Amino acid sequence: MAICVQKYGGTSMGDVELIRNAARKVIAKGKEGFQMVVVVSAMAGETNRLLALADAIDPRASAREKDMLASAGEQVSIALMAIALQKLGQQSISFTGPQVGIVTDEVFGQARIKSIDNQRIQAELNRGKVVVVAGFQGMSAVSGDITTLGRGGSDTSAVALAAALKADECEIYTDVDGVFMADPNVVPGAKKLEKISYDEMLELASMGAKVLHHRAVEFAKKYRVPLHVRSSFNDQPGTWVIEEVPEMEKLQVSGVTSNKKEAKVSLLGVPDRPGIAAAIFEKIAAKNILVDMIIQNVAENGLNDISFTVEKSALPDVLDMKEELTAAVGAREMVTDKDIAKVSVIGVGMRSHCGVAARMFSTLARNNINIEMISTSEIKISCLIREQQVDQAVRSLCEEFNLADSAK
Amino acid sequence: MAICVQKYGGTSMGDVELIRNAARKVIAKGKEGFQMVVVVSAMAGETNRLLALADAIDPRASAREKDMLASAGEQVSIALMAIALQKLGQQSISFTGPQVGIVTDEVFGQARIKSIDNQRIQAELNRGKVVVVAGFQGMSAVSGDITTLGRGGSDTSAVALAAALKADECEIYTDVDGVFMADPNVVPGAKKLEKISYDEMLELASMGAKVLHHRAVEFAKKYRVPLHVRSSFNDQPGTWVIEEVPEMEKLQVSGVTSNKKEAKVSLLGVPDRPGIAAAIFEKIAAKNILVDMIIQNVAENGLNDISFTVEKSALPDVLDMKEELTAAVGAREMVTDKDIAKVSVIGVGMRSHCGVAARMFSTLARNNINIEMISTSEIKISCLIREQQVDQAVRSLCEEFNLADSAK
Repeated sequence: MAICVQKYGGTSMGDVELIRNAARKVIAKGKEGFQMVVVVSAMAGETNRLLALADAIDPRASAREKDMLASAGEQVSIALMAIALQKLGQQSISFTGPQVGIVTDEVFGQARIKSIDNQRIQAELNRGKVVVVAGFQGMSAVSGDITTLGRGGSDTSAVALAAALKADECEIYTDVDGVFMADPNVVPGAKKLEKISYDEMLELASMGAKVLHHRAVEFAKKYRVPLHVRSSFNDQPGTWVIEEVPEMEKLQVSGVTSNKKEAKVSLLGVPDRPGIAAAIFEKIAAKNILVDMIIQNVAENGLNDISFTVEKSALPDVLDMKEELTAAVGAREMVTDKDIAKVSVIGVGMRSHCGVAARMFSTLARNNINIEMISTSEIKISCLIREQQVDQAVRSLCEEFNLADSAK
Repeated sequence: MAICVQKYGGTSMGDVELIRNAARKVIAKGKEGFQMVVVVSAMAGETNRLLALADAIDPRASAREKDMLASAGEQVSIALMAIALQKLGQQSISFTGPQVGIVTDEVFGQARIKSIDNQRIQAELNRGKVVVVAGFQGMSAVSGDITTLGRGGSDTSAVALAAALKADECEIYTDVDGVFMADPNVVPGAKKLEKISYDEMLELASMGAKVLHHRAVEFAKKYRVPLHVRSSFNDQPGTWVIEEVPEMEKLQVSGVTSNKKEAKVSLLGVPDRPGIAAAIFEKIAAKNILVDMIIQNVAENGLNDISFTVEKSALPDVLDMKEELTAAVGAREMVTDKDIAKVSVIGVGMRSHCGVAARMFSTLARNNINIEMISTSEIKISCLIREQQVDQAVRSLCEEFNLADSAK
């Protein structure tokens, strides 16, 4: 029998009435002939409420205990969803991540799923039950501790379960109608995509599009899980995230995104010798800090400047390493800048079309937006700019690449 | 090294400042030379908030899912307590009930602890950590499902852990100064007990004294765990609950309690033949409904009246069985009464002193309080009376047995 995994995010689980609404959608899909697995997030605002309590006690609370704390939010949601399904006459059973063997590594706060034991879920599905699983959480194989997958991790839970169960579909229910070429809040009239490739979605997700967690897309790509991103507030089709299809090649640029969550760190006056980049980034990786963009300037007088970006939330940790980092590479000084933002254009069409980068740079220049760093991939170009110019940058790029309806 | 288990109830965990206060008490006790295990309840009001969400979806939500839901409350508390201890420089680690092998039976909502695997806790204690354990919850051995021990179950968790760890002390922190001879809210000037025997405390707890859960006292008695019931809001000694000591024999009556949570059920006109009581109470036990008092009248014309009391919350379930119960024993009818209350006097001294029952009955009679049912044990006499007379009954009995300071 075909299996469908549905995921309902926090806004779809915001209150009792919304939970009932989601339960109705689950049952309707089941009536189409699917065995149903439902992954839920904590009720909207709950994770923040819990972490604020920890923060009030200790702003640098241990990651293990924060995972113990935050994972309680999803546990509440699974029980309420199972109760709502049962009230509507649908047999149902809820499970925490550990209970269904979602095994992760030991990195609290951003654990990665290593394996899922699908036997218990399949057994309950075969008994005719809808299985409700807590998103965002797992259990470390070594210690049995509860781990969380990081913000947005419920998407990853859903896709990983879909892969483990060889599900035919994975529906991600959220509070927007699908994936848009740009944030409709920034660019009124931004167009919704009917389909998008895993690779493009991956760039969009990594670049800060809030609709889908990037690790969920990685998983979906790896296991070829067809994703359907759609709204829980209506029955309209959303956006399918699938393997690349030829018609996509027509689009040079399929999206513009921005990200204000990063900060820039620069090490200035670094002597130019082999192994410098390794010396820096090994130390940073050892603290589990994710680095995004990295730029190394051409050497002048034998001295380099090396800049990179990290999540703003990781900046205190990087500042703690200031002495260590400057000493390690003999840098003159380390400076940081929080008032930056990243704007990116994404599209598989770039592979076969020249000039996208040039159009992007000249559009920004026409709008008096200075570019501080640039990084590129096969299907993406990102520019670091001043934070206060980012919305203007997104709008002008959407106009340039025709991503929004003209009535803006 | 000596071990102390401390339990902090919901009012002691009411907000961040109170949690910090409790953490300081934990550390202070540890400095006296104890390895510390801390059992915590959900933050005040949290369990009710969670169960109200379930209730809003389905007033008869499944017990399994309600346990999944409610147990999230304690999970929040353990993480916050561990964080507070760490912030104060004390190494600490939190565990859910399932994580430390608190294994229970399958009776969701009022599960009984079957065993505790103390190895993980002892290992962490030996590493110098304070171990914080979620009260109120366990895991069913058969299914791995999360279970809860019923309201007040955190007391039981604490005592069971103290027994499993062969702890030297078990301190129960609450929002009152100890065990009183009567409810100070009903009887101003009610005296605090310095010591009380397990048996007396058991009767007090069963009779509705809110200070300690009766199953916790059963456990403490069985494993001879010395309990110290005290306030988390001051450093005064509270009440020790211990084995019987000779000086206690002087007290004929050590407490008066009342309970308004029960309802009376009567089966009228039941033919008098063997096996009738069994027929009724086997059916009720099968639904996991607890029965407290049972009275069977002397047969007249071959017909009996059988009355019993159950928790008011169980009354809907009993009413659902009306047809079944009357049919099973051939009763004429079944009637129920919610407007009743139970008043009890308790004291080990009753064993060696006559006349306590007579004094109780005549005190109630002098106050024009009608007695509807009576039940007795070796150290307790309970009378069922009209609910609206119960506070007057408690006050007059305290006066009769001199349990409150004269300035009332």
